[in-house]
Amino acid sequence: MKIGFIGFGEVSKRLSNLLSGNILITSKENRSKKTIENINSSNICILETFEEVAKNSDILISATSPKQSLENAKRYGKLTNGIYLDLNNISPKTAIRNSKNTRNFVDGSIIGSINSNFTLYLSGKDANKLNFLNEYFPVRIISNNVGDASKLKILRSIYTKSLSATLIETLTIAEKLNLKDELLDTIAISEGEDFKEKAISRVKNTKNNAERKKEELQEIIEYFPDDDLEIVKASIKKLSNI
Amino acid sequence: MKIGFIGFGEVSKRLSNLLSGNILITSKENRSKKTIENINSSNICILETFEEVAKNSDILISATSPKQSLENAKRYGKLTNGIYLDLNNISPKTAIRNSKNTRNFVDGSIIGSINSNFTLYLSGKDANKLNFLNEYFPVRIISNNVGDASKLKILRSIYTKSLSATLIETLTIAEKLNLKDELLDTIAISEGEDFKEKAISRVKNTKNNAERKKEELQEIIEYFPDDDLEIVKASIKKLSNI
Repeated sequence: MKIGFIGFGEVSKRLSNLLSGNILITSKENRSKKTIENINSSNICILETFEEVAKNSDILISATSPKQSLENAKRYGKLTNGIYLDLNNISPKTAIRNSKNTRNFVDGSIIGSINSNFTLYLSGKDANKLNFLNEYFPVRIISNNVGDASKLKILRSIYTKSLSATLIETLTIAEKLNLKDELLDTIAISEGEDFKEKAISRVKNTKNNAERKKEELQEIIEYFPDDDLEIVKASIKKLSNI
Repeated sequence: MKIGFIGFGEVSKRLSNLLSGNILITSKENRSKKTIENINSSNICILETFEEVAKNSDILISATSPKQSLENAKRYGKLTNGIYLDLNNISPKTAIRNSKNTRNFVDGSIIGSINSNFTLYLSGKDANKLNFLNEYFPVRIISNNVGDASKLKILRSIYTKSLSATLIETLTIAEKLNLKDELLDTIAISEGEDFKEKAISRVKNTKNNAERKKEELQEIIEYFPDDDLEIVKASIKKLSNI
């Protein structure tokens, strides 16, 4: 199996590592210094151009950034006869748009941490052809509909980000009342032993990235304009005041 | 140790069961039919009046209802020389008020389910005298301040009720997109295997008791008028629209 990578950041680096044993190809064409370092430290064949990568791939993985994803799809999506797997962390709308510029499009979302535990969620009519990837890491095929994998990631994000905002709200008051540790221990009775550690890490991570997380929540509201997203809206307010 | 009970509902029934081996006393004075049934099915000594119960108790447990708690404290709080343990699920303000009508007041909150797993949280200067109850069920003494045990229960309630509202918001959209089961499985990756079952049971319980839970959230806002309770307010809205 020949697997091509457009873009060679954290995601491609880790996947290429897990997929060793296959023929892995990429290109250094117009890549940043950091990306070239990633390529040099991996066991991967280097072709002159991404066009060649596309033409030679049974699976072509696009993993750059949400903004570049359309450009990638337009340029290389019809050059490959293989599966085009989009891992650009895109919105469901972008997934559908990108699919129109490619043959054999599969919508992919990495859920979890790419460098420790993750599951690759896939949707699209050709997604089942990627089932064999389960040999290398956990893969779940959720439906034939392009966009479903991306939607699942957004839905998960509604839950996790609102949960973090809830923790911030609760722990702020608890701290003022000098009951923070007691409260965390108390909640842990029903939520499990690792609750305390996870809650503290969630709050820290959210506070450190409040601006970005606020923007992501804002995008969710734009994506579901007709739904009652009271909690998401309140979470945005909460993140504006920390 | 002589332990007296004012009120003999679910809490007293269960505690008296766990505390068997001590001398347990109560009265049928002005009690409801249901309460008298509870008393008749327990191994407990029955005195003519609650005045006698108060006078004879080393620990006097008041477990009727938040509304009756002040009346209990006023009537019996100074008749007993023992510890007065208030388990009426009262607000921190009520705890402080009741403590002024009693000697040796201890503020108590039962967290968890009285009929399966619970921990009894205690606060007040005499709380440490009840440490021996750990022989019978889990007890945690959190501070010398009357009101802290009640505050802890409120803080926990902010978290659990907001979490339920967040689940309702997220799962409503997921259901519309036909991704509810997938979403629950996906969140379970980070939240633990029992997440799915717990989430479904939380949503069901909250929907079935939306009105009461809304009122409890409203009370929280009244109790913390100066705090940013964006998520609690959004949770009230959420519970108004289901």
